[in-house]
Amino acid sequence: MAKYIIKMNKIGKLNKPVLIEGLPGIGNVARIAVDYLIHKLRAKEFVTIYSYSFPNSVFLNEDNTIDLPKVQLFYWKNRKGRDLILLTGDVQPPNEEDSYLLAEKILEISKKLGVREVITLGGIGLMSEPKESRVHGAVTDKKYKDELKKLGVVMNGNGVVGAIVGAAGLLLGLGKLKGMKGISLLAETFAHPAYIGIRGSKSILQILSKYLKLDIDFRELDKEIHKIEEVKIKRESERMKKITGEIGILKEEEEHRYIG
Amino acid sequence: MAKYIIKMNKIGKLNKPVLIEGLPGIGNVARIAVDYLIHKLRAKEFVTIYSYSFPNSVFLNEDNTIDLPKVQLFYWKNRKGRDLILLTGDVQPPNEEDSYLLAEKILEISKKLGVREVITLGGIGLMSEPKESRVHGAVTDKKYKDELKKLGVVMNGNGVVGAIVGAAGLLLGLGKLKGMKGISLLAETFAHPAYIGIRGSKSILQILSKYLKLDIDFRELDKEIHKIEEVKIKRESERMKKITGEIGILKEEEEHRYIG
Amino acid sequence: MAKYIIKMNKIGKLNKPVLIEGLPGIGNVARIAVDYLIHKLRAKEFVTIYSYSFPNSVFLNEDNTIDLPKVQLFYWKNRKGRDLILLTGDVQPPNEEDSYLLAEKILEISKKLGVREVITLGGIGLMSEPKESRVHGAVTDKKYKDELKKLGVVMNGNGVVGAIVGAAGLLLGLGKLKGMKGISLLAETFAHPAYIGIRGSKSILQILSKYLKLDIDFRELDKEIHKIEEVKIKRESERMKKITGEIGILKEEEEHRYIG
Amino acid sequence: MAKYIIKMNKIGKLNKPVLIEGLPGIGNVARIAVDYLIHKLRAKEFVTIYSYSFPNSVFLNEDNTIDLPKVQLFYWKNRKGRDLILLTGDVQPPNEEDSYLLAEKILEISKKLGVREVITLGGIGLMSEPKESRVHGAVTDKKYKDELKKLGVVMNGNGVVGAIVGAAGLLLGLGKLKGMKGISLLAETFAHPAYIGIRGSKSILQILSKYLKLDIDFRELDKEIHKIEEVKIKRESERMKKITGEIGILKEEEEHRYIG
Repeated sequence: MAKYIIKMNKIGKLNKPVLIEGLPGIGNVARIAVDYLIHKLRAKEFVTIYSYSFPNSVFLNEDNTIDLPKVQLFYWKNRKGRDLILLTGDVQPPNEEDSYLLAEKILEISKKLGVREVITLGGIGLMSEPKESRVHGAVTDKKYKDELKKLGVVMNGNGVVGAIVGAAGLLLGLGKLKGMKGISLLAETFAHPAYIGIRGSKSILQILSKYLKLDIDFRELDKEIHKIEEVKIKRESERMKKITGEIGILKEEEEHRYIG
Repeated sequence: MAKYIIKMNKIGKLNKPVLIEGLPGIGNVARIAVDYLIHKLRAKEFVTIYSYSFPNSVFLNEDNTIDLPKVQLFYWKNRKGRDLILLTGDVQPPNEEDSYLLAEKILEISKKLGVREVITLGGIGLMSEPKESRVHGAVTDKKYKDELKKLGVVMNGNGVVGAIVGAAGLLLGLGKLKGMKGISLLAETFAHPAYIGIRGSKSILQILSKYLKLDIDFRELDKEIHKIEEVKIKRESERMKKITGEIGILKEEEEHRYIG
Repeated sequence: MAKYIIKMNKIGKLNKPVLIEGLPGIGNVARIAVDYLIHKLRAKEFVTIYSYSFPNSVFLNEDNTIDLPKVQLFYWKNRKGRDLILLTGDVQPPNEEDSYLLAEKILEISKKLGVREVITLGGIGLMSEPKESRVHGAVTDKKYKDELKKLGVVMNGNGVVGAIVGAAGLLLGLGKLKGMKGISLLAETFAHPAYIGIRGSKSILQILSKYLKLDIDFRELDKEIHKIEEVKIKRESERMKKITGEIGILKEEEEHRYIG
Repeated sequence: MAKYIIKMNKIGKLNKPVLIEGLPGIGNVARIAVDYLIHKLRAKEFVTIYSYSFPNSVFLNEDNTIDLPKVQLFYWKNRKGRDLILLTGDVQPPNEEDSYLLAEKILEISKKLGVREVITLGGIGLMSEPKESRVHGAVTDKKYKDELKKLGVVMNGNGVVGAIVGAAGLLLGLGKLKGMKGISLLAETFAHPAYIGIRGSKSILQILSKYLKLDIDFRELDKEIHKIEEVKIKRESERMKKITGEIGILKEEEEHRYIG
């Protein structure tokens, strides 16, 4: 059971805070979504967690300074409704035990801050790129089902999703044991390791903003999606040119062969 | 040494309780047997054990709610004889240390409840499907041997079974160190990972019901066995049709080849 | 750091006891040597060590009873000289940490019993079967060198042996930190996993009996060596027959081929 | 979390000591550099650290004595400036947790001795042997950048180096959390496992001696580099002869083929 180093700033009382999880995972869907929320809402960092179970290395920043891998909590004071606690980070612990332990630590901190509801995010890795990224739901309590369905969340039981691995699963499961309610929102994405599941992040954020009555400006996210699409189209057309080129060479060779 | 979370309801005094183990394993023989007992005897859950060594994920239920992987104890008050404590669960710990630790926890709880005898169940994975599923025995004490032989248990020394791995072994071994007696009943089954060792479960339950003088109705289990057999026969006949079909195609192709 | 369960009987005071290690390892050289000593000297078991780091299973005995994997200490009261503590067992811990921890436990017990000198045994796995099994030495203290050379131990520095892995190494290394002196006697043997290094065991025992002035009857060990040799010769001659047979078949085939 | 055994001699007060890390790693660049410093400055050993996470074996010395794997601190009293604490050793811990823990132990000891600045060394493994071994820098604090650039250190952000793994990274990262400043100097070397990165060690030492105003005699190091070069040239010329020989044979064969 690895040691944890937790740095925490005092913050004022929060109003019925909701914890939203966005650690790295399939398609990085969760992390992109939460990082966008942090950016757009100008949420403030107040907890940094280091752990002996994280990679035994430091990352280099652009200015040559170094940082240990870390997991962070941000908070956002909502003038119109419930406050948010946003969980993001560089890593998820590599083994079962430390995965449980990190979830436990985060729930302990959250409980002290008054969190009664946990929303975890994640991706469902499909074998091909989905045209639209549907969002599937899992809950700690049946009462959630109708509300989530109305928001467009697919509630298909355990047909598509059999298990939720990592922080997205454990924060709900361990939270339930501590008397917290919770939802997991899982967006369909592409299982390719290099795929950036930013469309899935948007699908989740659209549901999340309705559920939490947030007013999120999606323009920056759309620009990012657009950029990625352009890169993809460019790559694809280059790939086509290359293939055409290769076919050209092939033809020449074949001609030579037939000639010779 | 992973942390454990144990939820326990108080129950009244038990009459000379016997612990019966049925955790997942080869052919799932043990778990099916104990789950059938729980179902038929209407045993009541009273202990739930979660562990940081279990998979770091939650399972989805059909109603979209989630559950952490767990191990459970049920009890059954027997009007005619000794009470039972029944151990079932989703998983066995993945490593040596946590396997020992879980067995230790269960024995501690059992000892406090007055358990002096432990019966562990399991499967012996054969290379082909056995026609009849014989039950082999292992004991903490030589005195058991004659009684078990009379009940039809094969007591062949260490010829067939060299070691008993996991909870089925450790509950006997660690129990012995705590002054408990015990039996392991191991049914022959098929080592194929997809094989459901339900016939082995029945063989064990037949011996168990004689040993503990239980009156178990096997009709539901027989129905299940029948269903599995039917699925198997259906699959087999489909497989035969397919093969015949493929042979047909093959013939056609061969004919074409010879014709062309 | 795995839990240990230690069962210990009280024994009277020992006279300048020497600890001799014989846990499983290359060719099982060490274990065979120490088990033979225990057998011949009629040493008495007084410590049993179980550990959560040992395999999570029980072994079956011929009489259908089960036993947890264990490590044991035996003692032998020597009328003519120093008493012996003999270490044998079913296993060595599978990882670094538990390997250190077991060595530490054994040294703690040994120190309390007055042990100041530790002798560890082991095999050096060669790529082919050695004709004679030479014994190489490693020591905690240079003063040992001349005496060991006189007894026939090869003291070649770190030319042949670069490191001693497991209990044989750690009992010396950790013992040295506790102020104990020690020797490691390593017999050349064959690195094949199925090879029984009983000749190496004899080489070690011959040196050990001179060093400790023990009067060991080697006849039983010689019988065992003889038996193994016979099995080997029988196997070899069968293998030759088989090869000859196969060559016969080959010849026939070749003839056919040349004929046809 | 593995146990540590720490042996420490008392030393007098140190003058603004700097910790310099030189544990094994890519090309052994760091260890060679620090061991050369220890040798040239006649630094004195005062701390030895053993750990249950280190290999469970002992190394043999040339005189047949054995030693547990260890990590050591040496100190050097500098008459003209800041004192040095030099870290060298046989190993780095094999897993994340113990890597953190060892760094933590070393920082604890260093902090008590007054260390405020940590310099860690390492190699960057390139796919081919670099002609000159440039030194890249990483820092805890931007203020270092100009000074290091003046000394010839490449400060390219995270272009070449993305992460620093092991003690070289963690001593900076964990040190930063304890209020220590630090630099990592990483020399380009060849990623081949058998390559001795002694040229990289020299590049680092040249910068280090300027930064710390040390007067280091490089002649012995140059001799070593020369020796390695000679061995390489000899091997290369033998390899060329062999190839020429093989080409000779090839030619003969070809001639035969053309003749035949």
